[in-house]
Amino acid sequence: MFKKKDIFFKTLEEMADTLVKAVEYFADGVSNLSDVKAFAKRMKEMESECDQYTHTILKELNKTFITPIEREDIMALTTSLDDVMDGVEACASRFDMYHIKEKDEYITLFADILVRSAHQIKSAIYLLTQKKLLPMREHCISLNELENQADDLLRVCISSLFTNVKDPIELIKRKEIYERLEQTTDCCEDVANTLESIIMRNS
Amino acid sequence: MFKKKDIFFKTLEEMADTLVKAVEYFADGVSNLSDVKAFAKRMKEMESECDQYTHTILKELNKTFITPIEREDIMALTTSLDDVMDGVEACASRFDMYHIKEKDEYITLFADILVRSAHQIKSAIYLLTQKKLLPMREHCISLNELENQADDLLRVCISSLFTNVKDPIELIKRKEIYERLEQTTDCCEDVANTLESIIMRNS
Amino acid sequence: MFKKKDIFFKTLEEMADTLVKAVEYFADGVSNLSDVKAFAKRMKEMESECDQYTHTILKELNKTFITPIEREDIMALTTSLDDVMDGVEACASRFDMYHIKEKDEYITLFADILVRSAHQIKSAIYLLTQKKLLPMREHCISLNELENQADDLLRVCISSLFTNVKDPIELIKRKEIYERLEQTTDCCEDVANTLESIIMRNS
Repeated sequence: MFKKKDIFFKTLEEMADTLVKAVEYFADGVSNLSDVKAFAKRMKEMESECDQYTHTILKELNKTFITPIEREDIMALTTSLDDVMDGVEACASRFDMYHIKEKDEYITLFADILVRSAHQIKSAIYLLTQKKLLPMREHCISLNELENQADDLLRVCISSLFTNVKDPIELIKRKEIYERLEQTTDCCEDVANTLESIIMRNS
Repeated sequence: MFKKKDIFFKTLEEMADTLVKAVEYFADGVSNLSDVKAFAKRMKEMESECDQYTHTILKELNKTFITPIEREDIMALTTSLDDVMDGVEACASRFDMYHIKEKDEYITLFADILVRSAHQIKSAIYLLTQKKLLPMREHCISLNELENQADDLLRVCISSLFTNVKDPIELIKRKEIYERLEQTTDCCEDVANTLESIIMRNS
Repeated sequence: MFKKKDIFFKTLEEMADTLVKAVEYFADGVSNLSDVKAFAKRMKEMESECDQYTHTILKELNKTFITPIEREDIMALTTSLDDVMDGVEACASRFDMYHIKEKDEYITLFADILVRSAHQIKSAIYLLTQKKLLPMREHCISLNELENQADDLLRVCISSLFTNVKDPIELIKRKEIYERLEQTTDCCEDVANTLESIIMRNS
């Protein structure tokens, strides 16, 4: 398809790398919570970095006629990778805004699902850029499974929240963070859905 | 357009059938609430059934060159039918997660609007698959009216909630279910909007 | 491109005019709050007016082969202008539904950002309809800056809310209005993003 590393593929790889880095930083931060202000600030920087990649891809799409995969697929992948990053950053910022100081084992479990999802995304994107489409499928399946796990986890932890937490303001904080984390795994599944349709149309 | 029943049209009909069945089950469940765990579980099964239809349509779209109506319209219809189902299932699961045991007359009213909307959707989809486009219009108009009713109902019940409910956790639960029900009627209106644009472009 | 004022451009200008009027009415209303019911009712009327323009554009798009800019861009602009209006109206209606009687300086600050955003949108749309694409860029930059301001403002006011407000029901009301106002500036940024891609593809 192309000789020198295509700008779209190169930037998608950089987005996937940044995502893995950001999600690992997030998982580390939520199991620590020593300085939520610094934690939220650093996540915001990584989110801005990801925005730059999105901007690069949009700019290139607008001036390039021939793209290595369909324009809509590049656009959809970029948007969903950016949505994953936005979701993680929005959660991190809530720890600061809500003055959360205590660890929460459910959040740790969500963070673990997100770390595993980000690695699956990265593996799949690197296969895409090497035009190895069929092997992407197993990562898509894993992403779907991880999203199902997050969905089950949400049901368990919201149910537990309404059983055990009597302080409504505490409940509001936790509920929103759990829901945002689960929605972020939905964005990971969107990446998988786009990749699956690329596989189907090209094999 | 085609002789044997087209796979897209057949699957859209199956989705509409499942939707009617699911919404009627939902309306029955919320006026009963004897076993919210079984209720949520059964709704989840119907939602998975609907996901299978969505998957069938996506797979066929990716391998078919000639479609009975435009690909984007099939995609938009499938997505909005699936969104209606997801919305209803999400509400059902909240009855379980929030340990709701008491009936709520506003929820019954929303459920009634959704039952009527699902029947309008089913009638319109069956007209579409018989290529009777113009008669779809009256169902689209009904769907718009039902969405307006749900919007008015939301305003009434949220206002009532903030006047009458003093327990914040109770308020959080009811508010979210009302809002999700209203948003589900927005998804029904999305079905109508797609059908209207099909009518306009083909008549 | 065309002689008599194109219907799409004319209607987009009317939407932008209505938006400026609505957002200024909103800013005035939230600094006043003497009659929230009348305030919400008037905003709903302006939102319906905007819906009519949206409907006009959709109808014309479905029967017109040649459009002054790409169909997808007209569609995206229309949708995001309509989303801004819906966002402002949804906030106004919450003042009524939540029986809010006291002014809130943060809401006044958000309203000010929205007034400035609506004027930037109007200026940009009028440049678009005169085919002066490059000068639109400075308005897009301003819209991005205003969205960043709203994002920072949200973080400040949510943090303040969780520090200072001890009544959970009061907190629920304010939090939702702040978040909806911030999301409305995201919709303003969507207008800017569409305009920027029009500039890039046509210069």
